[in-house]
Amino acid sequence: MKVAVIRKAHFNAAHRLHNPAWDAAKNQAVFGLCNNPNWHGHNYELEVKVIGEIDPDTGMVVDLGWLADLIRREVEDRFDHKNLNLDTEAFRHLIPTAENIAVVIWQILRAHLPEQYDLHVRLYETPRNFVEYPA
Amino acid sequence: MKVAVIRKAHFNAAHRLHNPAWDAAKNQAVFGLCNNPNWHGHNYELEVKVIGEIDPDTGMVVDLGWLADLIRREVEDRFDHKNLNLDTEAFRHLIPTAENIAVVIWQILRAHLPEQYDLHVRLYETPRNFVEYPA
Amino acid sequence: MKVAVIRKAHFNAAHRLHNPAWDAAKNQAVFGLCNNPNWHGHNYELEVKVIGEIDPDTGMVVDLGWLADLIRREVEDRFDHKNLNLDTEAFRHLIPTAENIAVVIWQILRAHLPEQYDLHVRLYETPRNFVEYPA
Amino acid sequence: MKVAVIRKAHFNAAHRLHNPAWDAAKNQAVFGLCNNPNWHGHNYELEVKVIGEIDPDTGMVVDLGWLADLIRREVEDRFDHKNLNLDTEAFRHLIPTAENIAVVIWQILRAHLPEQYDLHVRLYETPRNFVEYPA
Amino acid sequence: MKVAVIRKAHFNAAHRLHNPAWDAAKNQAVFGLCNNPNWHGHNYELEVKVIGEIDPDTGMVVDLGWLADLIRREVEDRFDHKNLNLDTEAFRHLIPTAENIAVVIWQILRAHLPEQYDLHVRLYETPRNFVEYPA
Amino acid sequence: MKVAVIRKAHFNAAHRLHNPAWDAAKNQAVFGLCNNPNWHGHNYELEVKVIGEIDPDTGMVVDLGWLADLIRREVEDRFDHKNLNLDTEAFRHLIPTAENIAVVIWQILRAHLPEQYDLHVRLYETPRNFVEYPA
Repeated sequence: MKVAVIRKAHFNAAHRLHNPAWDAAKNQAVFGLCNNPNWHGHNYELEVKVIGEIDPDTGMVVDLGWLADLIRREVEDRFDHKNLNLDTEAFRHLIPTAENIAVVIWQILRAHLPEQYDLHVRLYETPRNFVEYPA
Repeated sequence: MKVAVIRKAHFNAAHRLHNPAWDAAKNQAVFGLCNNPNWHGHNYELEVKVIGEIDPDTGMVVDLGWLADLIRREVEDRFDHKNLNLDTEAFRHLIPTAENIAVVIWQILRAHLPEQYDLHVRLYETPRNFVEYPA
Repeated sequence: MKVAVIRKAHFNAAHRLHNPAWDAAKNQAVFGLCNNPNWHGHNYELEVKVIGEIDPDTGMVVDLGWLADLIRREVEDRFDHKNLNLDTEAFRHLIPTAENIAVVIWQILRAHLPEQYDLHVRLYETPRNFVEYPA
Repeated sequence: MKVAVIRKAHFNAAHRLHNPAWDAAKNQAVFGLCNNPNWHGHNYELEVKVIGEIDPDTGMVVDLGWLADLIRREVEDRFDHKNLNLDTEAFRHLIPTAENIAVVIWQILRAHLPEQYDLHVRLYETPRNFVEYPA
Repeated sequence: MKVAVIRKAHFNAAHRLHNPAWDAAKNQAVFGLCNNPNWHGHNYELEVKVIGEIDPDTGMVVDLGWLADLIRREVEDRFDHKNLNLDTEAFRHLIPTAENIAVVIWQILRAHLPEQYDLHVRLYETPRNFVEYPA
Repeated sequence: MKVAVIRKAHFNAAHRLHNPAWDAAKNQAVFGLCNNPNWHGHNYELEVKVIGEIDPDTGMVVDLGWLADLIRREVEDRFDHKNLNLDTEAFRHLIPTAENIAVVIWQILRAHLPEQYDLHVRLYETPRNFVEYPA
């Protein structure tokens, strides 16, 4: 009787899409406006889905307070009001596309989640563009 | 050519998270504010997903009017403006967490849905916390 | 050059609409399902609007951190996960309709807001019903 | 490391649910208000989900500009501000239910999407009724 | 102590923007896609705002059940799943723009609302375009 | 018979709140995380409200296509995917708070709007913080 529990969170950050292996023209051609050297930014909306069995004593899959604290400490405090390219270890050598940010957040949270749970991440870069990992 | 049809519904209810096998201190430690003996409440938003083949004569998987009536009669009329712990059979001996409410709603609707359909339930307890069953 | 700044907040509470001066039949006739003696509840969504001049040194009308803290302390901590009728002073002798809750919240916040600001409150009882004070 | 990328789009259209093999009474009984011979309409909200591997050079699964252009050209330009029954080839002999529209959009986009990608479509007919294909 | 109470409702309708005093070319130039002779349609979302004094006996400005019934009978039943141009008296000789629909709904509801209340109408034609009357 | 017409738009930008007349400690104390020297960013959601009389020939207050083009050219093209502090004239010497951005957008649009119209701007910096000008 597996149930999924989803918690929403958010953070605001600046980023730039840029591949240092390419010249300026190719970066501009591939990434367009997102390549602006002076950065742009987003309100990222995050949904963290944890799947597991209901504990019959609590009626809960996971303590939602614990999950909210984990997301705050590991994701929001790390990325909120930051420049993803300059201020974070994770994107020093990885292009901070929504796809890569979702995978990084999944990896961070996976390391803190007991093994019996499955984990899925959905990340909205804008209200009209979002990604899910794993697909 | 299986298609999923989703219908949204909602109900407002009071509840309290409390395990009678535990003393007050443990209930408070586990459930926090949700253990308030005087109750609190939510606007529950429900999404009922029915999966099946498209009927070539109607172009529909299921008659949406029939589905909306079923949800109104079996879920909304049963839970809306109720105290889940005191006013409903389902939660007299089951803690009304979002997880358990979702499973109960699934069981109620499953019993009324023809066998050829699959059924999934998503329940929002707040705009930032929601559950899905089956996961 | 007056600008309005709006901050959203929320709280979950139980309540019951009941006028002790009336008998059960009249209460039922007037308040319907909302008169359930075992309570029901809502996710209240609150928008607090503060109107004032932009401070040229900060570019801000009001320190949003200060405003968010004020709302948390005076509104969320007071009402969240509470039974409005039983657990709060404000509604011991006042029917906790959305209209009255909005006026009470306005009065609470008005007392903490410097005089040069105007204050407006919008309160959603459900996504389809909400109130504004002053109108 | 498969990631899903979702792009939202929308179009406004008129339609009528009607099976020409049935008489007026049966059409009315099955389709109700949706059978109105003078048409009615909707704001259709579309979510197109493309699943694939992240390209390590771009950090992206698919060029979102390319995907947005594809949806605009193949879906929005074809259906926006149209009468689905009268103005489009796809629904000349197919009842334009949400289910059938979703399948048709999937077939149109599938033909333009490189083979390595998986494709899913979600279509909102109203904020409370929506469908997904494949389920 | 005036409070505003807002109730949301919705209806789905087909329409066409066309001025019979103009030729086809001018209609096309002014109304563009909205002039399609085969109609298109929308999910109209309606917010009806009623302003008045709180009744101290009920804590309410207006009986929300009465208001919801009024909107259902006078607006939803009249316009839902209709062709505004062909199926309604109001738009037989009036172009059914969002502006005109809002004014018509205001006039209909105003005639049923006791004099002591003020009335405002907001109408969403799409999630990105909406109108308010009176301004 | 004045009606308000509202059009939504959006842009994504980076910014930093910083008063060059203050030292680093005071900037940090006043602006907190928003003072990050490496920038952060937002998805700004904009609502432009134009108030005027309905033209009886068109049923419209203003040509919505014209208004959408004006917002695209004067606001979206100017601010989207930009660093507000570095890439725009308007905020070279003005702190890009939501309040100031709203006033600047109002001033830009006002200059292009015929005199008979009133203009109001609402700007969401995040889903929970927004401003309105004039108040």
